[in-house]
Amino acid sequence: MVNFMNILYVYAHPEPRSFNGALKDMAMVTLAKKGHAVKVSNLYAIKWKAVLDAQDFRMRQNPYQFNPAVEQIHGVVSRSLAPDIQEEIAKVAWADLLIFQFPVWWSSMPAILKGWFDRVFVQGFVVDLEKGHAYGEGLLKGKTAIIVTTTGGTQEMYSPGGIHGDLETHLSIITHNIFEFVGMTALPSFIIFGAAEMTREEGTRQLERYRALLEKF
Amino acid sequence: MVNFMNILYVYAHPEPRSFNGALKDMAMVTLAKKGHAVKVSNLYAIKWKAVLDAQDFRMRQNPYQFNPAVEQIHGVVSRSLAPDIQEEIAKVAWADLLIFQFPVWWSSMPAILKGWFDRVFVQGFVVDLEKGHAYGEGLLKGKTAIIVTTTGGTQEMYSPGGIHGDLETHLSIITHNIFEFVGMTALPSFIIFGAAEMTREEGTRQLERYRALLEKF
Repeated sequence: MVNFMNILYVYAHPEPRSFNGALKDMAMVTLAKKGHAVKVSNLYAIKWKAVLDAQDFRMRQNPYQFNPAVEQIHGVVSRSLAPDIQEEIAKVAWADLLIFQFPVWWSSMPAILKGWFDRVFVQGFVVDLEKGHAYGEGLLKGKTAIIVTTTGGTQEMYSPGGIHGDLETHLSIITHNIFEFVGMTALPSFIIFGAAEMTREEGTRQLERYRALLEKF
Repeated sequence: MVNFMNILYVYAHPEPRSFNGALKDMAMVTLAKKGHAVKVSNLYAIKWKAVLDAQDFRMRQNPYQFNPAVEQIHGVVSRSLAPDIQEEIAKVAWADLLIFQFPVWWSSMPAILKGWFDRVFVQGFVVDLEKGHAYGEGLLKGKTAIIVTTTGGTQEMYSPGGIHGDLETHLSIITHNIFEFVGMTALPSFIIFGAAEMTREEGTRQLERYRALLEKF
């Protein structure tokens, strides 16, 4: 059985000629060859506005005091969110699978990607806390999401007993507190450790490992 | 014994007329009354650039391929980092105590603050990995840092068995993987849970609790 999917690829690396760039380019080809429909949010390329602020809301519920949660709910209902946010929301709504590719900076996402979640995953679209629509009843139920990431530190550093602590635990802020919170199924993260110090051969091996994962979608 | 300190107050909330704004304003008065020297980085007020990119580096080591870690080290040595980064670095170097106040968004920092760490905590200034200067030998050794934060979710949600998981664990990405990684001593985080639903009385009580903490500095 062939299972074509709508895939949103959210990518956050500043340099196209990087190993992350190579991973992304390979993914584009592999997913297209499989017959999936792919949309890309290349955050550095589109100069994504990372900072959630009052400018995101064109019709304010409360023009006197800016409360992000209140304005997000109002912005969804009144369809008055900034156009760049609405565009991303439409892509998320369209997607069956969301792939988030980024380098680990400070054990977490680059700010530009954090700002994508801050601004795009608005209350009223991804969860409805008043009605208890979160986790198993999250509004993005039925969708699947995966993290694809590279680290400077080694796997040992990021192991449960390592100096940086378990990277899986750090990433659970994304896989549990974002993906699962909004109702999505979180796939195991695809992590390439020690990407800064890789040989060319190891880089090729990791590219093939990623290709094998993508082939399964 | 009176112990006057240099304090850097990094603040990341978009609305001055918010509870976070009230906490910050009270802190300014309390710390000044105690005789401390205080500098503020009010990230929304100064429209802090959240996104680390090639524009941050005015003299590139490698103009053909942008590698953030490589350019950060080179930028410190050649004193060619963007002026806004250099200004923050000077404040950090000057400070004995760093206070980071922000609302929890997606179990973590708002993007504007994540981008402050991405851009200001450059390799070569906060750590020197080649020489093993991290953690106990981190370059910011001798300084102390604390998180002051508010959550929408309740304390129960953010408890070890709660649906969001233990907030202290989530914040360890900051207290351990940033503060301790660069050599700073991390004080226990000051957390106000359920700030979105607080009564006025509870708000006053929490303000007083924060004032009592600040009085001890």
